Amino acid sequence: MDEREVIKEVMRIVGQERCLDDCAVIPFRGGCIVATTDMLHESADFPAGMSEWQIGWMSVAVTLSDIAGMGAAPAAVMLAVGLDAWERITGIMSGAKECCDRFGAELVGGDIDHHDELTLVSSGLGVVAPENLVRRRGAQVGDLICITGVPGRAQAALEGYRQYEEYLFEPVPRVTEGQILAGAGVTSMMDISDGLALSLYDMLEANTCGYRIRLADIPLLDDVPPAEARDLALYGGGDFELLFTCPPDRLNIDGAGYCVIGTVIKERSVLIDDRVLERRGYQHQW
Amino acid sequence: MDEREVIKEVMRIVGQERCLDDCAVIPFRGGCIVATTDMLHESADFPAGMSEWQIGWMSVAVTLSDIAGMGAAPAAVMLAVGLDAWERITGIMSGAKECCDRFGAELVGGDIDHHDELTLVSSGLGVVAPENLVRRRGAQVGDLICITGVPGRAQAALEGYRQYEEYLFEPVPRVTEGQILAGAGVTSMMDISDGLALSLYDMLEANTCGYRIRLADIPLLDDVPPAEARDLALYGGGDFELLFTCPPDRLNIDGAGYCVIGTVIKERSVLIDDRVLERRGYQHQW
Repeated sequence: MDEREVIKEVMRIVGQERCLDDCAVIPFRGGCIVATTDMLHESADFPAGMSEWQIGWMSVAVTLSDIAGMGAAPAAVMLAVGLDAWERITGIMSGAKECCDRFGAELVGGDIDHHDELTLVSSGLGVVAPENLVRRRGAQVGDLICITGVPGRAQAALEGYRQYEEYLFEPVPRVTEGQILAGAGVTSMMDISDGLALSLYDMLEANTCGYRIRLADIPLLDDVPPAEARDLALYGGGDFELLFTCPPDRLNIDGAGYCVIGTVIKERSVLIDDRVLERRGYQHQW
Repeated sequence: MDEREVIKEVMRIVGQERCLDDCAVIPFRGGCIVATTDMLHESADFPAGMSEWQIGWMSVAVTLSDIAGMGAAPAAVMLAVGLDAWERITGIMSGAKECCDRFGAELVGGDIDHHDELTLVSSGLGVVAPENLVRRRGAQVGDLICITGVPGRAQAALEGYRQYEEYLFEPVPRVTEGQILAGAGVTSMMDISDGLALSLYDMLEANTCGYRIRLADIPLLDDVPPAEARDLALYGGGDFELLFTCPPDRLNIDGAGYCVIGTVIKERSVLIDDRVLERRGYQHQW
């Protein structure tokens, strides 16, 4: 059994619908709650050099990024912490608390445990008006494909470009942007933490259309050799940017800092400059 | 730094109020959502002999038990699974799903990861009418102290009394009982997964009164030597029963299967038969 088969197995047991979005959607009293959980652990997710404060910050940020991807406002975060050394708690909780405070979420609870490997699981709740909820599904042929920020920065830091270290160590979830975009009527959205290419394939899976992006339109890191910058943008992981689709007539959206990188097409493929985009990223590889 | 200091440190950073109850309380649109998260991992929490199905079941049950302790109805559960072997996913997700189905919760999402040690974090949401919400705080002098079920069964199984293995491997959270008790007007409540003695001390911390229990009134396992049965009942961990306080005039509650074991007193102590109850349990010890 490999990772793909695991996901299929989970879909079979809990239902495919439950696995398509950045968050689960829970209708409640005429409102809409979104909920998400993320497991991070030291060997896979915390690069050497991260402080405890940054580890705590990042653990909350991943969850807030999922909430942002639905167009929701963060409300509450819980943090389960498996500590390999008790002393690490102060920095971790401080970073987690500060990330919550910064984006308007309350750190409402958690669980403390001992674990051989530092392991953090943050679970978050967000709220959104039902009419503003955005999912991965919803793209229409003719919509423009857009992305916030410049993709590849977190991966660039991992590859040694230290000028991008803050994007790797203290990622900023696009919480404000997500809500602005949702309010402006974008048709589908997700965060690109697994990389732009894989995220486009995730979009493909959730929709009945296809995606064509143009390399020349993708914002690239300008202090990295061009071929590498292209690879980082397409396949680099760890960015907290938002990928979304939007009808051309709704495109003038202030305050979200995005670029148009392509068009939603009828053909069920992900294309870059009319060739099929390689389906790869910096996915978990064991 | 030891475990107590860790908890103090967490309280300092997130606020003591956030650490007193089985769940966090989140008011939403005139209703009340409770939320909780629990980390379990193989070496500490899954005794040898448990099947994957039972591991999945238990991981959800701990969270539903916290929700029951607030008098709430389970609504949604998320499960983050760090797998040491992909193959374990089928049993784990099936057990988790079945526990959700049994108690009316939806398994709405989760996260799959690879981890050296099997690690599960379940996060749950429950709903309760604000007037039915029960916390650890709220006991009044003169209230009776009550407990559902027979304490010590899970620990007995751990000590080799195999006739109690189902209580250890497939614990039944007191979801129905919690809601009945809350509706009947109990004044405070929590689950006793850390053991009866430690739970009474947790109650002490959350209230301004004290607790006196009578050994003769505690239901004991009748197929275990009496001294051992007493120890298991007071200090054994892993039970999914509810401890609650109730004014004597509200005590006729059908459908919750409980015993009166003592009285809420003014003196700020936990007493058993007028001696101070030892503050110990099968707490995490590293």
